[in-house]
Amino acid sequence: MAGQIRLVMIGDELLDGRSYESNSHWLIERLSIEGFIVAGTEIVSDEIDDIVAALRRAADGESLVIVGGGLGPTVDDRSREALGVLLGEALVEDSAAVEEIRGRFESLGRTMPETNLRQALRPPRAEMLANPIGTAPGVWQTDEEGAIALMPGVPAEMRRMFDEQLLPRLAGLDLERRPAQIRLRATRGGESALAERVEATLIAAGLASISRSYCVQRDGLDVILRARDATPSAGDELARAANGVEAALAPRVYARADGDLSALLLRRLADGGQTLVVAESCTAGLLGGRIVETPGSSRVFLGGIIAYGDELKRTLLGVSASTLDEQGAVSEATAREMAEGARVRLGADHALAITGIAGPAGGTAAKPVGSVWVAHAASITTRARGRILPGDRQQNRVWAVAMALDLLREGLGDGRLDL
Amino acid sequence: MAGQIRLVMIGDELLDGRSYESNSHWLIERLSIEGFIVAGTEIVSDEIDDIVAALRRAADGESLVIVGGGLGPTVDDRSREALGVLLGEALVEDSAAVEEIRGRFESLGRTMPETNLRQALRPPRAEMLANPIGTAPGVWQTDEEGAIALMPGVPAEMRRMFDEQLLPRLAGLDLERRPAQIRLRATRGGESALAERVEATLIAAGLASISRSYCVQRDGLDVILRARDATPSAGDELARAANGVEAALAPRVYARADGDLSALLLRRLADGGQTLVVAESCTAGLLGGRIVETPGSSRVFLGGIIAYGDELKRTLLGVSASTLDEQGAVSEATAREMAEGARVRLGADHALAITGIAGPAGGTAAKPVGSVWVAHAASITTRARGRILPGDRQQNRVWAVAMALDLLREGLGDGRLDL
Repeated sequence: MAGQIRLVMIGDELLDGRSYESNSHWLIERLSIEGFIVAGTEIVSDEIDDIVAALRRAADGESLVIVGGGLGPTVDDRSREALGVLLGEALVEDSAAVEEIRGRFESLGRTMPETNLRQALRPPRAEMLANPIGTAPGVWQTDEEGAIALMPGVPAEMRRMFDEQLLPRLAGLDLERRPAQIRLRATRGGESALAERVEATLIAAGLASISRSYCVQRDGLDVILRARDATPSAGDELARAANGVEAALAPRVYARADGDLSALLLRRLADGGQTLVVAESCTAGLLGGRIVETPGSSRVFLGGIIAYGDELKRTLLGVSASTLDEQGAVSEATAREMAEGARVRLGADHALAITGIAGPAGGTAAKPVGSVWVAHAASITTRARGRILPGDRQQNRVWAVAMALDLLREGLGDGRLDL
Repeated sequence: MAGQIRLVMIGDELLDGRSYESNSHWLIERLSIEGFIVAGTEIVSDEIDDIVAALRRAADGESLVIVGGGLGPTVDDRSREALGVLLGEALVEDSAAVEEIRGRFESLGRTMPETNLRQALRPPRAEMLANPIGTAPGVWQTDEEGAIALMPGVPAEMRRMFDEQLLPRLAGLDLERRPAQIRLRATRGGESALAERVEATLIAAGLASISRSYCVQRDGLDVILRARDATPSAGDELARAANGVEAALAPRVYARADGDLSALLLRRLADGGQTLVVAESCTAGLLGGRIVETPGSSRVFLGGIIAYGDELKRTLLGVSASTLDEQGAVSEATAREMAEGARVRLGADHALAITGIAGPAGGTAAKPVGSVWVAHAASITTRARGRILPGDRQQNRVWAVAMALDLLREGLGDGRLDL
């Protein structure tokens, strides 16, 4: 019977606050995208008994156990030893791995310390997994029931070895696969109303049996639809469901799959040879910082103004004193004037502005904490939108960035950006 | 015998890539700071058998199990049910919790759906843990061997309930405590040389038996020193070690405990009635965004200029065309002119500037990817510093922000900011 995958991450430093365990998150995401199913994960200490017990639990009934960490050269690194105990086999020295490790030290002009010989140990029937960027090779142990992979804990090494060594080997295992799925990405606001619309659409189309889930992301709501099973008719049903849901949520759907809203907007602007600037108050640079996450963003993004205080809103962006006095810094008029001022003064085709009260203080009855206005100025029109966001200080600032990006998307003509 | 703590996080969405499991990281950090020991963590699915098995494993020999998730109103939420199976007891309805949940719905003008009654169930001897910001109360079950806490999976609810409900109850359990520790926070750069200096200092002082660990944070390196045990002489030894290490690393140590570099700098500037602006190129707003993470930052932070392209460096910051032509946008001279331009044009006491090549493209032999210059302009002097950072695009930008903050700290007189 096909099994699933379990993860075991090893290290005292993952349990005492010294180090943030990130490998299991990365593996869960990658394995899910590839359609594999992760049945569970554990973090355990460096104690040999803890590791053996975790390996025993994880291997029970599953087809693959991926172990992260415990492959270093010191006596604290016990994953190889634990695998030997689990199998009841004495470890042997892999002569190719010894040469590999020795060569790596020699190429750096150093002599290999004897302790590094530990890293060449493996169970007798196992093979080594090459580590092109570190001294610790991995270990791959298979039998008729499944496989155990020992991987390094250093994230960069683990990720590269997963792609190069582990992923190709998974095809040879009897692993359960998730049915096909389609992910629709919708922009922020009214998530529960959106979800209700999805439900109503599927019921009306006689597709209520399609499995669906909802996932709030930094830019909005992902709707994930899954086929019943791997049959062609289930695939057809999934395609119909996705088309129906996309039509029902239009124009809020900006992509299928994993396209990033900011990166897709930059590509659209670059295709049209257009430029973008920002004017930020409460977000104080988060929108600019988000935009330049995408490599090559300098073709489109020129820069911006962080006008945190009112005076800089006047002097740098040309927001009028009367607007600030009469309507306040967090108002539709201020957002519009910020966007228009940035566009003209910085010389761009498009400008996005954000002004708001992120919290925790600064709210009033008329303008509570979470009040945010965003504006988009283009050559002919300026458009603005206001909302009261329900999160804490950091969350509201992230959501304000998503609001601004969505307003730009609407200004560019709405709809999907990944076509 | 005193036991330790195990964490069990529940939810299909944590295992299929829909949701990033963050509660265990938060709990590990908080519990470690409080001196408690986390023996291990697991993530399991919503299947009742998986949850019961995980609870059984976790409770075996330990004094406290903290369970996150599975307290919602739907049939997928099975933590209460699993606890009943583990104990072999039928659940009962907690009448106070029923009233509480009903009242919460009524205050929103809605009728409580019958399904929410599930949230008032608990084992007969358990007590409910109040949830002030959600409908799902927690459950606290104790016996002579230890305790099990069921907590909601929503991070904001879980965190608040941990502080208000759980932490006060931990004093009543027989939990093993970590010996006292002192955390010294040093700014970025040359982490391995810093660590060697710590080692040499402890050996020279005859304190080599002090346990120490190193933890790289976004602003630099934390050195964590731990007492041998809970005796007064071990406490004295720890204090001497911390004083010795702090002196050896001075002026790089900016705080003990968990003070945030940016927040501490803002407090220092606020105390002196001084103001701050930024001029950012490759970070494009991350420094501004980081500064305003601290509530109340508007007393000090006025705003800034994001000059991503060269033209805005000239027009908005007054960087001279000859500097840009002859030395390039990533150079000491450009960083200095950016800082000076921002300080004068935006009218602040202090300005920080960042310019660099974050990658992955844009490097040359003379200025490789990762090249970063930061500058600090104050009323009399401007100082700058350059480095070649070894990370990827996002990491280099975070480190560049840390470099700029550290340069400001030096400009304010170095040393600890938390005194």
